[in-house]
Amino acid sequence: MNNPERQTRLLSSMSHAGFDALICDAATEVLLLTGYWPVLGASIAVLAADGECRVLLPEDEMELASRTTSATLVPYRPEEKTRLVDPVQALEGPLRSVLDQLGLSQATMGVQLQRGMQPASYAASVQFRASLIDLLHHIQPAARYCSADSLLERQKASKTPTELDAMRRGVAIAADGFAAAASSLTPGLREAEIAARIQAVFESSSKAEAVHRSYGFFYCMSGPNAAMAAAAYAQTRQRRIVAGDLVMIHANTCADGFWTDLTRTYSIGSPLPRHQAMRAAIDEARSAALAAIRPGVVASQVDRAARTVMERHGLGDTFRHATGHGVGFAAANAHALPRIHPASADTLEEGMTFNVEPAAYFDGYGGMRHCDVVAVTNNGVAVLSDW
Amino acid sequence: MNNPERQTRLLSSMSHAGFDALICDAATEVLLLTGYWPVLGASIAVLAADGECRVLLPEDEMELASRTTSATLVPYRPEEKTRLVDPVQALEGPLRSVLDQLGLSQATMGVQLQRGMQPASYAASVQFRASLIDLLHHIQPAARYCSADSLLERQKASKTPTELDAMRRGVAIAADGFAAAASSLTPGLREAEIAARIQAVFESSSKAEAVHRSYGFFYCMSGPNAAMAAAAYAQTRQRRIVAGDLVMIHANTCADGFWTDLTRTYSIGSPLPRHQAMRAAIDEARSAALAAIRPGVVASQVDRAARTVMERHGLGDTFRHATGHGVGFAAANAHALPRIHPASADTLEEGMTFNVEPAAYFDGYGGMRHCDVVAVTNNGVAVLSDW
Repeated sequence: MNNPERQTRLLSSMSHAGFDALICDAATEVLLLTGYWPVLGASIAVLAADGECRVLLPEDEMELASRTTSATLVPYRPEEKTRLVDPVQALEGPLRSVLDQLGLSQATMGVQLQRGMQPASYAASVQFRASLIDLLHHIQPAARYCSADSLLERQKASKTPTELDAMRRGVAIAADGFAAAASSLTPGLREAEIAARIQAVFESSSKAEAVHRSYGFFYCMSGPNAAMAAAAYAQTRQRRIVAGDLVMIHANTCADGFWTDLTRTYSIGSPLPRHQAMRAAIDEARSAALAAIRPGVVASQVDRAARTVMERHGLGDTFRHATGHGVGFAAANAHALPRIHPASADTLEEGMTFNVEPAAYFDGYGGMRHCDVVAVTNNGVAVLSDW
Repeated sequence: MNNPERQTRLLSSMSHAGFDALICDAATEVLLLTGYWPVLGASIAVLAADGECRVLLPEDEMELASRTTSATLVPYRPEEKTRLVDPVQALEGPLRSVLDQLGLSQATMGVQLQRGMQPASYAASVQFRASLIDLLHHIQPAARYCSADSLLERQKASKTPTELDAMRRGVAIAADGFAAAASSLTPGLREAEIAARIQAVFESSSKAEAVHRSYGFFYCMSGPNAAMAAAAYAQTRQRRIVAGDLVMIHANTCADGFWTDLTRTYSIGSPLPRHQAMRAAIDEARSAALAAIRPGVVASQVDRAARTVMERHGLGDTFRHATGHGVGFAAANAHALPRIHPASADTLEEGMTFNVEPAAYFDGYGGMRHCDVVAVTNNGVAVLSDW
């Protein structure tokens, strides 16, 4: 991914923070720095203030990485066939060389120290915890290591044009799953069967031929279970859908590390008057939120625009979460910037991407949510999932 | 999950290590300590040496947790509707109360500090990095915090009878996916289409009704792509399968946090003589490995048993990885104990679970792997995936 605008932004933020280098070990931030989204999370990206960028990565990921980043790749072997290897010790030599070559022995380095959320990059992934920082102190005891977490959170909020293109590709693939949703909602089927049908259409999408890695998760929540979708996570269960249900299909999918967060809600059979009332309110709240989005706006105003509509429809109490949060480098993270939350002072900027998810939840009855991914343009908003 | 045997083992190991408590923040180790597998990875389990066990967890996970653990649940709110919350600060009060109630102000605590691998528990999950240890030091400055990582790795290696039952349920669900594999291998289909078909059958399995959460990943690698399956990760691509291909179906699936690691390889059309030769060698290597497994055996002997067969068939160089590694709490982790590796001194014990995956890879041509999950019994081995 050729993305010079990102490097310009990163180097500017590093200069402002006084960092001679950024060292990132989490897959999402390696993607941010290099364009490569590691599979196993065992890769380390080092970006020096002069723009030199190196990635230490398991040898097995070389081919994939070479297709997606122009950073210099430095392979290491976290496991070997003939001897047992300590994977952190295996990093030591290559990491020392990289830091020496980049002249960072006395440097101030920005590293990841704080709590964060990582989207799933594979069935399992590495967490370095304290081991990487310990290794860095061992290799370069005269260097200083400072938290770069808030710098990285801010960088992830606004996408470059190249990153926006990647997000559009990801949303287009996810759309193929949703296109199959309505026809999959056969009364009598279990939620798990419905989610599986939609997931299969998504995973078969020929649009995925345009990316290196596409995958993700579709969830189905029906009837009373859809009310529980107000939680911080979605969960498909085994309930069988029946006529009169509201059925919520939620997806977090990704294309080459860029994630979507999408929800649509369907009525089984003819929509009941209660469904129609919920949908009218949510549609209007969505429109009000979208109309409020442009650069310079404080994010709480967008939340207020949607919430006011829900309140006017008598549904204020049922809209149990914020109107949105950052999406793209994040999959499902209520703390990702910008937070479209009643108390958020985050200011919208061109290129910021987030979800807009007005919703109404009634315990024991059901729930409806309509969740889009949007991007702030130079004078308004683009709905990436405008279908 | 009522699992008193696990608590007995944990308390014994803590006594041996001199720990007054274990504090685990990673989802897999919370499962180990409590029977609850957190969704978002934002839960903290505290097990005191007197057997008292508490789990701090996001309020949204209370219902799920209450069905799977008998530990005392202490909810907290990492996000709120009306105010912006720092999720680590939100932990402080509840964590302080728990540590006070358990009398741990001067305690020696075992915590997770080293590199590890975590299976994916949701579309995204929390990494505390240094923030939890910093919080612990802040709350209980007189306590000592020591690495419990090797204790936890050893504990995860051997499953209790209750955990073995959970693994058997997980393997049974995965089997439904593999049962659909052969009939899904239609020439002309892309790998992604085949993987999606099999995945859909797995996700629709009615056996999943017996567990709370079942999901996972099926991968399809065909022709030359199957040779790349020797890597530390599997990857489904867009290649269309043709007659004469070897097609490898690999799965990492889970049931309530207990993972499988399974592979089968199919010939498209009548097996070519070359396929038959590979299959004969792999079948024989598998049998030799299984015959070598019993308590007290050094793991390298199991690897040697399989490797000797492959060498005798002239396929020693094509068997590019170890014969296996720990599976269950781990999904795909070559370092999980016991390592069935040429250099491994790990000694097999009853209840240990791992994969046995003899394989042959030919660059540019294809690959064949047969990967089972097995458990060490009191006098031999049980193949959990004996189909």
